[in-house]
This record gives sequence, C-alpha cells and structure tokens, in this order.
Amino acid sequence: MAGSTFGTLLSITTWGESHGSGIGVVIDGCPAGLPLTEHDIQIYLNRRKPGQSRFTTPRKEDDAVEILSGVFEGRTTGTPISLMVRNTSQRSRDYSEIASCYRPGHADYTYDCKYGFRDYTGGGRSSGRETIGRVAAGAVAAKILSELGITVTAYTKAIGPVSIDYRRFDLSQMEQNAVNMPDSAAAALAEAHLDACRAQQDSCGGIVECVIQGVPAGIGEPCFEKLNARLAKAVCSIGAVKGFEIGDGFAAAEVCGSSNNDAFYRKEDGTIGKKTNHAGGVLGGISDGSDLVFRAAFKPTPSISREQETVNQSGENIRISIKGRHDPIIVPRAVVVVECMAALTILDMLLISMTSRMDRIQEFFGCNR
Amino acid sequence: MAGSTFGTLLSITTWGESHGSGIGVVIDGCPAGLPLTEHDIQIYLNRRKPGQSRFTTPRKEDDAVEILSGVFEGRTTGTPISLMVRNTSQRSRDYSEIASCYRPGHADYTYDCKYGFRDYTGGGRSSGRETIGRVAAGAVAAKILSELGITVTAYTKAIGPVSIDYRRFDLSQMEQNAVNMPDSAAAALAEAHLDACRAQQDSCGGIVECVIQGVPAGIGEPCFEKLNARLAKAVCSIGAVKGFEIGDGFAAAEVCGSSNNDAFYRKEDGTIGKKTNHAGGVLGGISDGSDLVFRAAFKPTPSISREQETVNQSGENIRISIKGRHDPIIVPRAVVVVECMAALTILDMLLISMTSRMDRIQEFFGCNR
Amino acid sequence: MAGSTFGTLLSITTWGESHGSGIGVVIDGCPAGLPLTEHDIQIYLNRRKPGQSRFTTPRKEDDAVEILSGVFEGRTTGTPISLMVRNTSQRSRDYSEIASCYRPGHADYTYDCKYGFRDYTGGGRSSGRETIGRVAAGAVAAKILSELGITVTAYTKAIGPVSIDYRRFDLSQMEQNAVNMPDSAAAALAEAHLDACRAQQDSCGGIVECVIQGVPAGIGEPCFEKLNARLAKAVCSIGAVKGFEIGDGFAAAEVCGSSNNDAFYRKEDGTIGKKTNHAGGVLGGISDGSDLVFRAAFKPTPSISREQETVNQSGENIRISIKGRHDPIIVPRAVVVVECMAALTILDMLLISMTSRMDRIQEFFGCNR
Amino acid sequence: MAGSTFGTLLSITTWGESHGSGIGVVIDGCPAGLPLTEHDIQIYLNRRKPGQSRFTTPRKEDDAVEILSGVFEGRTTGTPISLMVRNTSQRSRDYSEIASCYRPGHADYTYDCKYGFRDYTGGGRSSGRETIGRVAAGAVAAKILSELGITVTAYTKAIGPVSIDYRRFDLSQMEQNAVNMPDSAAAALAEAHLDACRAQQDSCGGIVECVIQGVPAGIGEPCFEKLNARLAKAVCSIGAVKGFEIGDGFAAAEVCGSSNNDAFYRKEDGTIGKKTNHAGGVLGGISDGSDLVFRAAFKPTPSISREQETVNQSGENIRISIKGRHDPIIVPRAVVVVECMAALTILDMLLISMTSRMDRIQEFFGCNR
Repeated sequence: MAGSTFGTLLSITTWGESHGSGIGVVIDGCPAGLPLTEHDIQIYLNRRKPGQSRFTTPRKEDDAVEILSGVFEGRTTGTPISLMVRNTSQRSRDYSEIASCYRPGHADYTYDCKYGFRDYTGGGRSSGRETIGRVAAGAVAAKILSELGITVTAYTKAIGPVSIDYRRFDLSQMEQNAVNMPDSAAAALAEAHLDACRAQQDSCGGIVECVIQGVPAGIGEPCFEKLNARLAKAVCSIGAVKGFEIGDGFAAAEVCGSSNNDAFYRKEDGTIGKKTNHAGGVLGGISDGSDLVFRAAFKPTPSISREQETVNQSGENIRISIKGRHDPIIVPRAVVVVECMAALTILDMLLISMTSRMDRIQEFFGCNR
Repeated sequence: MAGSTFGTLLSITTWGESHGSGIGVVIDGCPAGLPLTEHDIQIYLNRRKPGQSRFTTPRKEDDAVEILSGVFEGRTTGTPISLMVRNTSQRSRDYSEIASCYRPGHADYTYDCKYGFRDYTGGGRSSGRETIGRVAAGAVAAKILSELGITVTAYTKAIGPVSIDYRRFDLSQMEQNAVNMPDSAAAALAEAHLDACRAQQDSCGGIVECVIQGVPAGIGEPCFEKLNARLAKAVCSIGAVKGFEIGDGFAAAEVCGSSNNDAFYRKEDGTIGKKTNHAGGVLGGISDGSDLVFRAAFKPTPSISREQETVNQSGENIRISIKGRHDPIIVPRAVVVVECMAALTILDMLLISMTSRMDRIQEFFGCNR
Repeated sequence: MAGSTFGTLLSITTWGESHGSGIGVVIDGCPAGLPLTEHDIQIYLNRRKPGQSRFTTPRKEDDAVEILSGVFEGRTTGTPISLMVRNTSQRSRDYSEIASCYRPGHADYTYDCKYGFRDYTGGGRSSGRETIGRVAAGAVAAKILSELGITVTAYTKAIGPVSIDYRRFDLSQMEQNAVNMPDSAAAALAEAHLDACRAQQDSCGGIVECVIQGVPAGIGEPCFEKLNARLAKAVCSIGAVKGFEIGDGFAAAEVCGSSNNDAFYRKEDGTIGKKTNHAGGVLGGISDGSDLVFRAAFKPTPSISREQETVNQSGENIRISIKGRHDPIIVPRAVVVVECMAALTILDMLLISMTSRMDRIQEFFGCNR
Repeated sequence: MAGSTFGTLLSITTWGESHGSGIGVVIDGCPAGLPLTEHDIQIYLNRRKPGQSRFTTPRKEDDAVEILSGVFEGRTTGTPISLMVRNTSQRSRDYSEIASCYRPGHADYTYDCKYGFRDYTGGGRSSGRETIGRVAAGAVAAKILSELGITVTAYTKAIGPVSIDYRRFDLSQMEQNAVNMPDSAAAALAEAHLDACRAQQDSCGGIVECVIQGVPAGIGEPCFEKLNARLAKAVCSIGAVKGFEIGDGFAAAEVCGSSNNDAFYRKEDGTIGKKTNHAGGVLGGISDGSDLVFRAAFKPTPSISREQETVNQSGENIRISIKGRHDPIIVPRAVVVVECMAALTILDMLLISMTSRMDRIQEFFGCNR
C-alpha cells in the first residue's frame, strides 16, 4: 500500500533506503510563487546530520540536497518538487551477521514477516535515514508557514530521567549544547547521563516537545481529521516514537475538570483569549488560537553494543552484540524531524481550512452574496 | 473537507448531531458474505449507552440501530451498509444561554471561528453522541476480526489518581462494576473518587487501555502508515482524548535500551516469540505477532456545574454554570469507543496487508510462478 | 473497497439498493453558511423520477428527500449532510426467475463473480435507483456553484440515430417534450423512434451533452487530476455510460491541428478569449475560461421484454424475457444525473484550486508579503 | 493539490519538467518479491522515445532509467521504487518568444491563470516528457500483470481519416511500420496522410485502441470506482486525449438493446462466456471475464509551424509560427503510454478486489469458517 505518501492538498511521497543510491521526496501541491533554494532545505537537513556532537555518530554524511524539479527561476511552479540526497558515505561493510539474525527492537523480523525478505544493509527502508525525505519536505512547509506568520519550534524536553522545567526555558540556549535542550543546567545533567549509558554499552530514550505559534483559530476538521489526530499520526509515524500527547496529555487524565478547563476571557485588544492552555491549543479537534503544544516519547536507540539474546532466521536462539558506532540517543537529531512533521501537518490543514465557509469562498472568487 | 470519513479499503463515513434527526454511519468496503444482524450492532451500542450506572447520565437514550442497506438475506452484500440511530429523547430544552456563550473545554468557540456559526443544541456535531456512528461501524469490524481469530478488548485503566496494576487484572470483573475496571478493589476506590468529584460539582479524567490479540506478524505499512501511527490517529480522533501511547509509551523515554528491547526467542512449537513486550506488539510500524497494547488519556468531562469564567459571543467576560446532568467522567462509556476505533483500524490494515507479497498474490489468483 | 465515496474536499458517500429500506447520501465537506432546504434538493430529484412521461416507467416513486443532519436553522453547518429517500413503492414481486439467471447487459453475473452472491431484487445496488444519492448531493453542489456564478446544464443530444444540431438549440424547449431535447423537431423524430423500439419490445441508446458556464480559468490540476480526467471518471461512473468526450472529442482525432487549435484573441474588455472552442474549455487539463462542453454515450436499456439467450446460475443455457415495464431509454432521466456529477466535480476542483498560489493564500489569511 | 499521484494500493507519484534536471516517478505499494531490472523498464521507455521513425522528432533523447530505491538483490522489497531519467539533450535554446505568448492548443495560458507564472521552457510540466514517469511505472505494473497471466496491448487504431478494420488486425505487423498500426495497407495510407499534413505545415489526430486479456471476472468496484470509470480517468489524464470509450462506446448510443446486449452462454469447458463483447468486458463497472477493449481519441499535435493567431502576455493580438521540429502526430508514441496507464489501473483494481469476500479473506489468513 502507498504508505510513503502523506497529506491531502500538500502531499509528500518519500523514498530511499539507508544503503541504496539515495534518499528523496516528492512534494506535490506546493503553492506556486514561493521563493525556494537548495539552501532553504539544506539548513534543515544539516540539523539532522550525524557527526555534529559527541552524542551523534561520527559517520560523515554530506546529505547535500538537489532540487530536481518544481522550481523555475527561483520560485516554486506549483508542480511537483522532487528533492534528492545521494547516499555517498555508506560503506559496503559486512552485513552477513545482521542479514541472518533479528536485532531486538528493530524491524528486521517484522519486515521479513511482511515481505518475505528484506534489505538488511543498514536497516534498509526502516533506517533513520528515511527521515531525510521528511526533513527536506518539512523545510519547504516551514518556509511557507513562516510567510504566513506561523512558527514551529521543537526541542529536547527530556533525556532519560532528566527533564526540563517548563518555567525555566531559554530557547536561545537550545543550540548551545549537544542535546538540543534549552536549559544549560539540565543539558549538563543529560550529557552526564548519556556518558553513563555509553560507558555501559547502552542507550537511552527521551522526549521532544514542540510549540507552534501563530496558528489562527478554526484550523482542523471535526471527527476523524481533528488537528490533534493528524498531528498524532504524523508524529507517531516517526520511527522510535512510542507516545504522543497534546497540552497536558496524560496528566489531564489525573485531574479534575475545574482545573483542566481553560477559561476564556476578553483580551485588551477586544479579542478572545484563554487564561491557561491545558488543552494545548485545540478544542474539539480545531485550533483555538493559543499555542499548539505537544510532546513525543522516543524509545532508546535499539542498537546497543551490549550483548543481547535473539534468534536467527533459522529460528535458533543466539546472542549478538551490534557492531559499529551508534547514537546513544535518538532525540537530539529527531527534534528537527518532529518539527518538520508538524509543519507539514499544520500547512495541509491550513490549506484545507480555506474552504470551510461559503462567505469566504465567495469573497475569494470575487462574488457578492 | 471530508473529515467524517475514515479508512482506506474498509471505510466509514459518520454523520449526525446531538439534537438532529439522528446519527448514522455508512460502512463502505465491507467484505461480502458476513452474517450480520441488528443485534450484532446493538450489543455494542448498548455498551456506550448512558443511564447504565450511577456515573453516567440518567438520560434515557434508546439508541436502537436500523440497518438501512448492504445486508441481504442476513449476509453483507459487499455494498455500503448504512446504519442509523434515530434521536428520540433529546428534549427541546432552553439552549439560549449556551447559544450565546463559549463553554470552557468545549468546541463552541472553535466551531464559531471555523464555520461562522454553530449548532448549539447539545453540542451539535461535537457532542459525544457522534461516537454512535463509530461504535455501530466498529461492531461490524469486530465481528469480522473475530471470524479471523482476532479479539479487541478495552477497559478502564485509570480514573483520576486511581490506576490498576497490570499484574492483578481480571477481565471477568470488568463488567461487574460501574466503571469498567477489571479490578474490584481499584474500582471501589475509583467510585469513591468520582463521588467526591461529583460532590464538588466537578469531573474527572482517566485512561483506557486496549489489548488486541491474534494479529499475525506483518500487519502495518512502513513510513507514514505505520500500524501505531494509524492507531494513534484513530484514538486521538475521539473527543476528549489528549494522549496516546503504545507498549511502554512515555515510560520508554526514561529507560535504557537494554531494558526496553524485547529479546526474540524460539518458542516450543518452533515459531519465534518475544520474551517481553515493551514494544506493545509493533516494531518499525509493523505487528510482531505479540499482543498489541495501547493506552488513551481522556481529559475530565468539560461540562461541570461548578461556576466557571468565560466570555459570550459579544466578547464580554461572564460567569456560567453548566446546567443539566452530565457524566462526571467520560472513560467508562468511552471504553467501547476505543475498542471500536481499534477494530476498524486493525481490520483496514489487515485487508491492506493482503497485497504486500507477489507470491501470495499469485497464490490468491491461482497462478504458479 | 470504498467505491461509494467520491470527491476530495467536498465528498459524497452514497448507499442503498433498489428494494432495501431506502437510498441515501452523506455529503461531507460542504462549506458552512449555505441556505438549504429539502425543496432545493427535491426539485432535482423530481427531474429523475420515473412516471413523468410516456417513455419512463409508470411506476410511481415518491422519492421524497429528508435532511437528517448538517443543516441548522436553514443553513449548512459545515458538518456532514445526510440525505435519505425511503423506498416506498417497491413491490415485493416474484424475483425467483431473476434470482437464478444472468440477465444480458446487467451486472447480475459480475456481482456474483465478485461477491459470491447478490441482492437480486430490482438490481440491488446496481439499480438505477442508486443515482438518487448522486442527484440529491448534486443539487447541493449546483446550488453552491450558482452562488459562485456557475451554471451546469445538460440535455438530450441524441436518441438512437436522431441527433440535434448544435446551431439550432433552444434550451427553453428542453422541458417541453418527453425526451429533454432542446429542439422540438428532433424531439418529435426521437419520440417516433422510441415508439418503434417499444413496438418491437426493444430499447434504445443515446447521448447526453452538458455545458458548464462561468468556470474561471485556472481550475483543474496537472497530470492525473486534470479537470477533464475527473469529469470523465465522474460521468463514466454512471451506470450504462460507455463513452465520454470533451470539446470535439473523437471528431478531433480526424482533423488537422490548424483547424482544431483555438486561436486566442483580445476581447473588447481587454481580457483574453478564444475564437473557437474545439477544446471544450480545457487546455492541459485546466479550465481556459470558455464554456466546458462534454458528452456522455449511454447504451440502450438492457432490460427488454424481447426474448434473449442467456445462462442460469447452474450454467445452463436458457431463454428469458424480462418482465415488468422498463424505460425504453435511459437518457432523458439521466440528464439530471450527468448534470449532478458534473456539478460535484467542478465544485470539488474549484475548492481545491483555492490553494494553488502563495499570493492568494497570503491574501486569504491577511498576510502581506 | 496532489495531482501527480495516481492509484490506491499501488500508487505512483510522477515529477519533472521538459527542461529541468530530469523526470521521475515513485512507485509505492509494489508487492515484494518481483524480479526487476532497469532493462525491464527501459524496453518500455524505448517505445515512447522520439527519433524512431520519420514521424517522430529527430531529437535524440537517451531516456536511460535509473532505479534509485526499492529493489534489493534483483527483487522488489515492497518499499518505494524511485525511478529517474535525467534530461540530457534538452538544448538551452531561445524561449523568449514562447515565454511571452500563449500558443494555441497548449497549456501556456491556463498555467499562467492557475499559477501566476509558468516554466515556459519546452512546455515545463505540461510537456509530453511528463509521460516518462507514467511509462516507467507502467512497465513495472505490466510485468506484475504478466506474472498473473494478464496482457495489455495497445496500437494505433486510426490516424486522421484512416482507420483500421477490426477484422483484419495482425498484431505482428504493428511494429513493422512507423505508425504502430497492425495493418500494413492502412499504415501505408496513414503515412501518406501524415506526409500531406507535414507538407502543409500541419498536424493530425488519431485513435489508440487497447485490449486487455486475462482479467478474471469480478474486478472493479460498484458506484464511483467502476473499472471503466477508473480507466476513463487514467486515459483522459494523458495530455491531448479528448475522448474515451469502452466496448462499442458512442456507437452503442445509436443501436437497440437487442443488438447491444451480449448473450451469455455455457462454454465447452462448463464455464460461462459471452457470445459477443459489445460491452467491452465490463458490466455494472465490474469485469465480466471477456477482453477489456477501449479507445482513446487524441487531438492533433498543437505545435504546428503554420502561422497562427494568438495573444501575448500583455494581451495584444499577434501571429506566431512555432519553431523547431515537432511530431506531426502524437498517437504512435502515445500507444505505450495508454498501455501503461491501463496496466496501472488494472493492477490497482486487481489488488483491491482481493478483499471483497469474507470466504477468500478467511482462506488467505488460514481461517476455517
């Protein structure tokens, strides 16, 4: 099934494996007239590149993007934008061990069950490199949103047991540490925890939080296409994500209505605001004009060098230790992936929302009622 | 946009408001030849009916379902199954107050922003009665799954601060208490908590857990249509859900890879199993043959009789107390809704998975390679 | 598969069989704020009703439509509009002969092959009554289009060998004869031909032509979602349609480029027009501002009382003559069905087109570049 | 909108312009385990290449395809197959005249209306080179179909006034002439007609016919997703197609039911067949086991060197003659494009049809009823 296409009006189709010729994405339905260069996309791709800190793999990946179509004289034409990143540094190392066994926490076994065989080199399609297509497309979505006054910002909220306090955020600190945590003190603790994990040949999970500002009230559709439902799918489709929550999320399940309800009030400019934002910016699946705030839980990197029990393709019990150098944590590099999936989701829903009212449609087409 | 349609091969389209003529659903793509009666559906609808315990509204709703099409001589024909429940007991009470103000925690304000006006009677489309369509369709999906050896079971995992212990479950107790909690002792505590909430004119949130047994390995699609991503969307599209997690979920973010990875092993019958199920039955977005286990966090019922601050449509600050009798908690009645959304999701992905391998397609069409 | 849903932003899902409880449609994505009554829909349904002339079946079908949801205080709310027509006059006659044999030209055999059995009463889902859902939804689409200055008009272009001349049309005559032909002289010939067919216990095919006026230039998408491709699918999905052509259609295959190309010119008001319209209003799949003109070929009614050869379900050769009174031609009643499928298609593409340009999106959301 | 994606379970997304970096397609949902090489695809691409006869442009286009993903050790993996053809021979000639004027019969004007500007080099996205993606994907679909015993064959049925007689076909002659007409005598007449057109600096239209053999009865969905409706959209989405008909098509509109109905009969092997095939292999939108036969009408090549009237972007009346060498007819090169769109459509519907019956689903999953 077409599992690699995402979106309704602005849709993306990604392709590529870890060790194939390259990784890419086709963006279809991008509005015409947007100024767009490869640089706009490259700065997003650089944020997910490995080798940028001591907690990401020292493998060098250039990940240079090429715009193959859909841009003419510096502007999008409205037709499909094809983006490609060539795989250049994937070594043809020995995959014979991985080829014949099922790594715990990986998709080796499930791909074999589904397809009868699998591309075992570097994880094939289930590799983290698959996110290159998401990020390249998300960079375009984020640029469009920024022209509409909407910003999407994600950061590391927690690493293992180290979580940052909502009231002490300083986003300017986010890019000043190796873990994309906007709180220097917490970041230092997190780094110490990661060092301990690595010393034990182990890995660690964490949480990414994302804030979207500037979304007007009224975006999202009733019933199955609620804004939060679409965000949940977008975020949970990222490999290693095991949970999604919006606003107070699971904490809302423990409290009373009187403390969870956000009171509306008249703002000084006469518009309507909310005194709190337990809802995370969405009521009945539709944006309420507040910041959209959600979180994604990432499991620990499944590749660890510590010895593990498993079976091989013949169904025999074996023990393996995964060779090579792997990130001890997924989260810092996943921050930009979450941001991009959110941008793609919000943009698509924003475009869809243009058609919800007769009066606005008539105005768009120059008709008077 | 078509926000009321859900699914790819087996899709449902729901319609109806709280106080309109009725509520319904059209199931399209249901395989032909399934024995189906109104009773099969009614037993699911009865589980979500109000008035069944002292924690659900004493309003009497008959919610009798009528099969309007798609069944001939007791079996499904393969063409659309139209199901309708007439709204019978909705009193034409005075909605003038609700009509002009925005209830905190409700969709009143966002619907007005999106559509320019709203059906204010009983919540209109954003009413909990919208779930009747989901449950009626889910009953059909669950019946198909049961013929394929797959069962879907949800229950109340937590109410406010009262949460049940995974190791002390007894599903047979689930329907013996007013809160659908399969643990009598915890249920008693939960009921006491609800009584306290009600005494304070307040409401309470909770968590529903769902276990799906019998799903073969290999169901789910890579990338955007991962089985967990689809489940996340399905579940988060239910009103009042603020979070979704599969397997260990957010807890996985706090631990190390060595404890989160599930070791594969050879089972006595020679097949491959997992020693633990931290993953919740899905690896790389594809089922691994273990039980699928996920949870949904529900916020407290937003309708509380306690006085709250808000604004009216003129943008003036006012205070309201919501009249009428409302459930102090959504969770017990939402259990069957979660179950139904899960059944619809699993069935659709199961049908899609039939086409993933050439050898199986050739066998299906009687071709030898 | 969900074969009964049509459209992207404004989508419809139809249901119902000839002899079931009723026929209906759910319209999802209808913009909010449209004034809508049952009368708006009934006048379209009345145009497809049988029993209106001597060439349609004398069966009396009331086909009274009921709005079940989506309209509040006389206006559409933006949520699903559910429409139902109860089947009232379907007699429970003896279908034992049809039940066991395959009528030539009907879907009896193919439904059995696909589904393993079929609802044989009155044709089940493949009955012409299925079009009630299309027409009810199309009436809503046509009303929206008319508020945007767009009109959709279909009429009988040909009946058997009798075809009307493009230059002698008089649309005002269309409803003055029994065959919906806007040319009295041709209509008289056509009626004579139909009388001859009927005398020979036979039936007759024909052509419907449709003209859509007021569509702005720029509607339609490149590649697979060309405006003409969508119209082709919409029209060919009507039972009994065997061909579709736009503009000069098949005649364009016989001529030279110099005569088929439409020359652009500057109109008196300074805008751009075309001197001819061989293209039928679409260039590269996108509307060019001219009238959209297309035709649909309908095969003869397959039900004829003349004896025919066929087989029964046991695979034995038999001879049958189809009892009951049937229209000797489908075309006059299909005119409104073609009109409605065209209206639904154009409206959906019109809504989609709102998102094709950055500058217009920015203007819509009140952003300055 | 995502106008460049086609298909439900097996879907394709095409991209690329005439003079950009390249042209490509992503095939998503291809079943795993199909042996596939670049050669399999190249032989289809070679059939649409220009420069192969005196009636196609002498431009040399290599159109060498590269498989970028989705194939591992010679077999499809079930994940997206990305195919690319680099644009190599597109000269950077002077497009200043075309840039500022609207060529009659082309999409220049409509793209400007839709998008505000356009890529004017070589037609941009509306160029015939867009079909490379369709053909590359269609080659894969055709290979899958052939493994299921289904063949798709298209040929030139008519060129201008020269049409071949159904009873004198000899498909072996098809590739022995410059116009892909399986009738040598007719081909000679057609070539003479094309020479005459060219002498007059003019172009010519024609008809492609397609026959699909081996499709089992029961493929196609009721209502909107009829097999013929899907074929109509697929074929009408090819640039320059102005009409589609299946079976007797428009001719069926002129005859009586008694001659148009196909009589069923018992074949010698006990199965059910049809004595004639006026229906073209489809009844009620579902395949009946006979050959599927349809035709597509192509307009004449709009680019002619003869002087034509038109307007420029400033809205001034001008006269132009289109420079460069252009095919005097589209049809011979379009034959393989029609074949490929048909293969993609049939394959998708075939996969979808696997889920229409409970008994077959239970058998597939190894359940006994």
